[in-house]
Amino acid sequence: MKIITSIKEMQKELDQQRMAGKRIGLVPTMGFLHEGHLSLVREIKKHCNYIVMSIYVNPTQFSPNEDFSDYPRDFDRDVNLAEQEGCDVIFNPDSEEVYPKNYLTYVEVENITKIMCGASRPIHFRGVTTIVTKLFNIAKPHVAVFGQKDAQQAIVIKRMAADLNFDVEIIVAPIVREQDSLAMSSRNIYLTPNQREQALVLSQSLKAAERKISAGEKNAAVIIKMIKNKIEEKHDAKIDYIEIVDQEKLECQTEIKNNVLIALAVKFGKVRLIDNIIVKI
Amino acid sequence: MKIITSIKEMQKELDQQRMAGKRIGLVPTMGFLHEGHLSLVREIKKHCNYIVMSIYVNPTQFSPNEDFSDYPRDFDRDVNLAEQEGCDVIFNPDSEEVYPKNYLTYVEVENITKIMCGASRPIHFRGVTTIVTKLFNIAKPHVAVFGQKDAQQAIVIKRMAADLNFDVEIIVAPIVREQDSLAMSSRNIYLTPNQREQALVLSQSLKAAERKISAGEKNAAVIIKMIKNKIEEKHDAKIDYIEIVDQEKLECQTEIKNNVLIALAVKFGKVRLIDNIIVKI
Repeated sequence: MKIITSIKEMQKELDQQRMAGKRIGLVPTMGFLHEGHLSLVREIKKHCNYIVMSIYVNPTQFSPNEDFSDYPRDFDRDVNLAEQEGCDVIFNPDSEEVYPKNYLTYVEVENITKIMCGASRPIHFRGVTTIVTKLFNIAKPHVAVFGQKDAQQAIVIKRMAADLNFDVEIIVAPIVREQDSLAMSSRNIYLTPNQREQALVLSQSLKAAERKISAGEKNAAVIIKMIKNKIEEKHDAKIDYIEIVDQEKLECQTEIKNNVLIALAVKFGKVRLIDNIIVKI
Repeated sequence: MKIITSIKEMQKELDQQRMAGKRIGLVPTMGFLHEGHLSLVREIKKHCNYIVMSIYVNPTQFSPNEDFSDYPRDFDRDVNLAEQEGCDVIFNPDSEEVYPKNYLTYVEVENITKIMCGASRPIHFRGVTTIVTKLFNIAKPHVAVFGQKDAQQAIVIKRMAADLNFDVEIIVAPIVREQDSLAMSSRNIYLTPNQREQALVLSQSLKAAERKISAGEKNAAVIIKMIKNKIEEKHDAKIDYIEIVDQEKLECQTEIKNNVLIALAVKFGKVRLIDNIIVKI
């Protein structure tokens, strides 16, 4: 497995692979790999025969008050895991390479980035769509994979790729959960044992919502209220949002008539967790 | 010469040409071709062996009060001229193809798009960088050519292509002028004979500025004042801006120490004309 840090070298390498007829798959990550990331690699393997994993903690998707500098990093461990999983090349640039002095250009998706996670993280998705555009231009992949864990991100990236005519197939892989059903996240290590226990309410309340909808409840406000009550029982939980939306325009649903995405963000102490479920009608 | 209107078909055609080893050149235009556009084709011919010309009047770079609907169009004439000049394919999509319902994504270059033409046309460059990003993703060119006539546009596009890591070489071709030195523009046909005569002051005052700098005048304010006085002698001229800037960050120069771009925009009646000169020190 190669490790490349230069953009020019990366473009040259990938051009050669492309001309040699390889089908290139991109797995963008911010490193500190867990089972969730590795499941993305296994997923994309079905769709390509040359796998690029990018490992880069992208500063432009963090606001100044967020956890950019505290975001967990362990590059050597990541390299071993990526190699074991069968990646062909790791792209690991430094920030002067990605955002040189005098950098000025951003890619922005309107409307669907202003709500949910975008409401409390106003520049977040602009940073995400900018770095993904750059990675698409650097790796020129045929296919790229993103996790359903970041449901809004996956929808925003699909919109961006379609709008800007990127010739890249976007795959969304299912959420990977711990045995007790907490959604895997690099940020989970910052939970205290007690917060870790409390955080189980997220997946539990989403599952309860799914059961209630299956049992016939179609009023979104009732479902949201039920989730809210369950979460508020937990001492350290501070709800950012709970939304029931459609899966394309992210418009709030009042009556649950078609498949919906139920998504939430909740803080436990300083750790902000997200989780979601797609409920099929 | 092929004419293609579908984005998918265009991507397929260009992928085939690329895999066959062709070096692809893109000439983005809004049609109503004149010698200026044809000089772009001649220029790019030196750098590639397969030429794509796009002909598309891009609505997102016009404000509601601007001349989008009045912008001159003559597709049949354009096709003949492009074919004579040796283009291999014309890309001529309609607006539902380029900006479908629910379109949300824009590419924006900060700072250098807020001054000069960007000050009086606030959404203009966002529209330009968005459509150029889309054309780059549709045509996947090795090289693209833009005219020095739109000096700020060329600088903004070079910044955007570098920032977003587009693997596209950007060429800027010199201004083509009428015999009496008026810079060629599709909008010139809207000048009355009298305005057409008055408009010669633009190139004349830029040339006079160049002579004055060569003769030793290094104070930018003095040069700007001289240009302003000359233009204001013309009855119908309404100055939008006259700026002396560097060629990368577009920062206003007070003392002319290095090569500078002198750029101006002036309205004659309803017709807004731009012109510029690079003065070498």
